[in-house]
Amino acid sequence: MEFQINKDFISFLSELVEQNKTKQIEEIFTEVHYADLAELFEEVNPDLAVAIIKILDTDKTSDAIVELDEDIREHILKGLSSEEIAKEVDELDTDDAADVLSELSEEQKEEVISKIEDVEHAKDIVDLLRYDDDTAGGLMGKELVKVNESWSNMRSIKEMRLQAEEVEKVYTIYVVDDNDVLKGRLSLKSLLTTSTKTSVSQVYSPSITSVKVDDKAEDVAKVMQKYDLVVVAVVDEMNRLVGQITIDDIVDIIIDEAKEDYQMAAGITDDVEASDSILELTRARLPWLILGLLGGLGAAAIMGSFDETLSKFPVLFFFTPLIAAMGGNVGVQSSAIIVQGLANNNIKGSLWSRLFKEIGLSLINGTVLGLLVIGYGFIQDFDVLTSITIVLSLIIVIIIAALIGTFVPIVLHKRGIDPALATGPFITTSNDIFGIFIYFSIAKLILPI
Amino acid sequence: MEFQINKDFISFLSELVEQNKTKQIEEIFTEVHYADLAELFEEVNPDLAVAIIKILDTDKTSDAIVELDEDIREHILKGLSSEEIAKEVDELDTDDAADVLSELSEEQKEEVISKIEDVEHAKDIVDLLRYDDDTAGGLMGKELVKVNESWSNMRSIKEMRLQAEEVEKVYTIYVVDDNDVLKGRLSLKSLLTTSTKTSVSQVYSPSITSVKVDDKAEDVAKVMQKYDLVVVAVVDEMNRLVGQITIDDIVDIIIDEAKEDYQMAAGITDDVEASDSILELTRARLPWLILGLLGGLGAAAIMGSFDETLSKFPVLFFFTPLIAAMGGNVGVQSSAIIVQGLANNNIKGSLWSRLFKEIGLSLINGTVLGLLVIGYGFIQDFDVLTSITIVLSLIIVIIIAALIGTFVPIVLHKRGIDPALATGPFITTSNDIFGIFIYFSIAKLILPI
Repeated sequence: MEFQINKDFISFLSELVEQNKTKQIEEIFTEVHYADLAELFEEVNPDLAVAIIKILDTDKTSDAIVELDEDIREHILKGLSSEEIAKEVDELDTDDAADVLSELSEEQKEEVISKIEDVEHAKDIVDLLRYDDDTAGGLMGKELVKVNESWSNMRSIKEMRLQAEEVEKVYTIYVVDDNDVLKGRLSLKSLLTTSTKTSVSQVYSPSITSVKVDDKAEDVAKVMQKYDLVVVAVVDEMNRLVGQITIDDIVDIIIDEAKEDYQMAAGITDDVEASDSILELTRARLPWLILGLLGGLGAAAIMGSFDETLSKFPVLFFFTPLIAAMGGNVGVQSSAIIVQGLANNNIKGSLWSRLFKEIGLSLINGTVLGLLVIGYGFIQDFDVLTSITIVLSLIIVIIIAALIGTFVPIVLHKRGIDPALATGPFITTSNDIFGIFIYFSIAKLILPI
Repeated sequence: MEFQINKDFISFLSELVEQNKTKQIEEIFTEVHYADLAELFEEVNPDLAVAIIKILDTDKTSDAIVELDEDIREHILKGLSSEEIAKEVDELDTDDAADVLSELSEEQKEEVISKIEDVEHAKDIVDLLRYDDDTAGGLMGKELVKVNESWSNMRSIKEMRLQAEEVEKVYTIYVVDDNDVLKGRLSLKSLLTTSTKTSVSQVYSPSITSVKVDDKAEDVAKVMQKYDLVVVAVVDEMNRLVGQITIDDIVDIIIDEAKEDYQMAAGITDDVEASDSILELTRARLPWLILGLLGGLGAAAIMGSFDETLSKFPVLFFFTPLIAAMGGNVGVQSSAIIVQGLANNNIKGSLWSRLFKEIGLSLINGTVLGLLVIGYGFIQDFDVLTSITIVLSLIIVIIIAALIGTFVPIVLHKRGIDPALATGPFITTSNDIFGIFIYFSIAKLILPI
C-alpha cells in the first residue's frame, strides 16, 4: 500500500476530487490492492468513495466493492447508476457478481443484468442467482478450467489457454466426459511430464472430492476443512460439473459461524459490530436483557414465596447472588464445551457416560468450592446448619446447572435447533431461577423453621 | 470412504489384526482418504491404530498421523519405533514433519532425524524446527516451485518438472534471482501462452504478497484473509524466499483463535474438549468458579454491611439476583462486541464517541427495562420509593456494566494483554459486586432509614 489512511490523506483526496484532478487520483491508486482500496472506502464518506469509484478503472474498483461491509456497499451502490453497476459486475467473477446483485431490488437487478455487456457472463450470473445463499450453489463460481477425457494433452493445453482467459487463478484442471459429468482431475505435474500426444484419459486422476449443488454451506465447509481442500468441485444431481468453490469463501463462513456462536453465548442476536448504530445494537441486545429481567422477577417471586424462611434466617439472603452466579457460571461452561463439541462433531460416547462425567466433575468442583464456603462460614461464625444449607445447595445447584448446560444443547441439536441458543443468557437465567428455588427449598428442609 | 466407522467394523478390524491378515487389511484401505483414516484412528483403541499403521503403507498413514488430535498422536507415536516414525516423517511435507517431530522428546527427536533416509528432507526439517510455533517460520513448508528470472520458459518447464516431484500441489510458481531473492510470480497462464524461448523476466508478474519469517502467525492469518490468498511466500531478512504457507494451516489457526475467545468468555482456560478427562476439565474450569465464588462471598459481605437498610426494607433482598444478573448480562454483551471488534481490527473512532454510544445505548435499554419493573411493582403494590430505588439502580448498574465491559478490554488490549480475559466470569463477577454495592447505596440514599 503506497498511502497511509489518515485524516490528511482523506482531506487531500477530497480536494483532488473537488478539483476534478482525475489523473492525479488515478496515479495514486495505480499500484493499490483492491483490499486496501476497500479499507479506504470503509473509512471515508460514502460520497467520496462513489466519486473515486467513478474515476478509477472498474478492474480495480469492482473487487474492492465486493470486499466492503454490506451496509457500506449498499450506500455506495445507491450512488452508482445501473449502467455503472453493470460495468463493475462485468469485471467480477460470477460468484461475487451474484452476491452484489442479490443485494439490489428486483427492479434494479433486472436493469443491471440487461446492461451487462458479456452475455455469457450475464447468463452464468442469472443462473447463480437461483441458488440459496447458504448452499454450495450459492457459494460457487462458474469460472473453472476443464478438459474432456478424450482430448490429447496438446489439445488440452490449447483449450486451457482459452479458458484461462476467464479464470483468475487455476487451482485444479477438471476432467469431464462428453456430458460434462465430472470424471476426475488432471494434475499439472502429469500434464508437464507426459507427451503432448497422450490422451487425458490415460493420465488423469479419478480421485476427486465434490459436493452437491444443494449441499449446505456449513457441510461444504466441513468437507473442505476435513480434506484440506483449497477448491472443491460442485456437481448437480446428474454428477455434472456446474462450478467450484474456493477456500476464501469458506474461510468467511467458518469465521461467521464462530462469531455467531460467540455472540449467541454473549446474548447478542443479529450480526452486529461495535460500529453499528445504537438502534441496531439495541435491537440485538435488548431481547436478551428482557429475558434476563423476567428471570430476575421470577427469582424475586420465588424468594417472596419463601418469606417465612427468610425472615427467620436473613443471613440466607446474603448468599442468593452467590448461588445464582455459580449456577450461571457452571451452566455456561458446560454448554460452551458441548456447543463447541457439536460444532466440531466430536461429541462421542453414550449419554449415560456423559451424565456420569458431568456429575463427577460437579462433585469435584462442588467439594472444593464447598470447603471454601465452610472456611468462610467458620470465620464469620455462622451456625453449622446454615453453613450446611449453603454448601449442600451449592453442590446440588452445580450438579443441576451442569446437567442443564450439557443436555439442553444436545436435545436442541437432536431436534435440528441451533444448540448455541442454549448458551449465555438463556442458561444463566434459567439457572438463576432453578438455583434460588433449590437453595430455599433445601433451607426449608434443613433449618428449624 | 468405503466403510462406516461403527462397533461391528472396529471389532472386525481387531479380528483381522489378531489373525495377522495383512492383505485383507491393506485391501480395505486401498481407496481410503487419509482424513478418513485419521477419523478411524481417533475412534479405536490406540493399540489397534498402531497395529494398522504398521501394516499399511507410510504414504497413507503419515498424513493420517498429522491429522490426529495431539493427545491421540502422542499415544500412537509411543507405539512406534524411532525407525518407524522416521519412515512416516520421510513421507510428510516438511512443515507437517516438523510439527510431528516437535512433539517428541529431545532424545527421540535426534534419533528419528538420524534415521530419515532423504538427507535433504531431514536438513529442511531441522531448519524448520528452529522457528517458533506461532511464527510464519513455524507454519511454513519448504516445498515449493521456483524458477530463476534469467531462465527461458522452456528451461523453467524442465526445472519445474523436477521440482514438482517433491511438491504435492503447485499453487504458485515463484520467480527468484540468483541470490534466491523473491522477485514475483509466474502465472500458469503466461507460461502457457508465450513462446518457450521467452525469458521468465519478460513475462513474470512482480506483484506478490509475502510475509517475513518472524511474523506472528495471527498476522499471517490476517494478511491471507485480507488479500484472499491461498498461499503466501515467506522471506527472510534479506528478502530471500525460504518457504510458503498454505491456507489450510491458517484455517486451523483462525478456528483455534475463535475457539479460544469463546472458551475464555465461557470461563474455560486451557484448550479442552468434551472428550477430555475429568481432571483436565476440572483444571480448566475450577479456577474461574473459584473467582465466581470469591465474588459471591464479596457480595455477601457487602450486603452484610447494609444490614440496617435491609432489615427495614426486606423487599430489596428479592431484587439482588435481578440487579446482579442484569449487570452481568450487559457486561458480557458489551465486552463480547469489543473483543470481536478488536480481533477484527474494526474498533474505530475516539474513546469519547464510544463512551457516549455506550451511555446512550444503556439509557435506552435501561428505560425499557425500568418500565417493565415499574409495571411489576405496580402489580405487586410496592411503595413508590422502593420502585424508584430498584429502577434507578437498574439503570445506573446497566450504564456502569456497559462501561466496564467496554473499557476494560480496550485497556487490556492497549497494554498488550489478551482482551478476551475480560469477558465471561471476570466481567460477571465484578459486575455482580459493583451492582449490589450500587443498589444498596442508592437504597440508603433514597429510602427513609
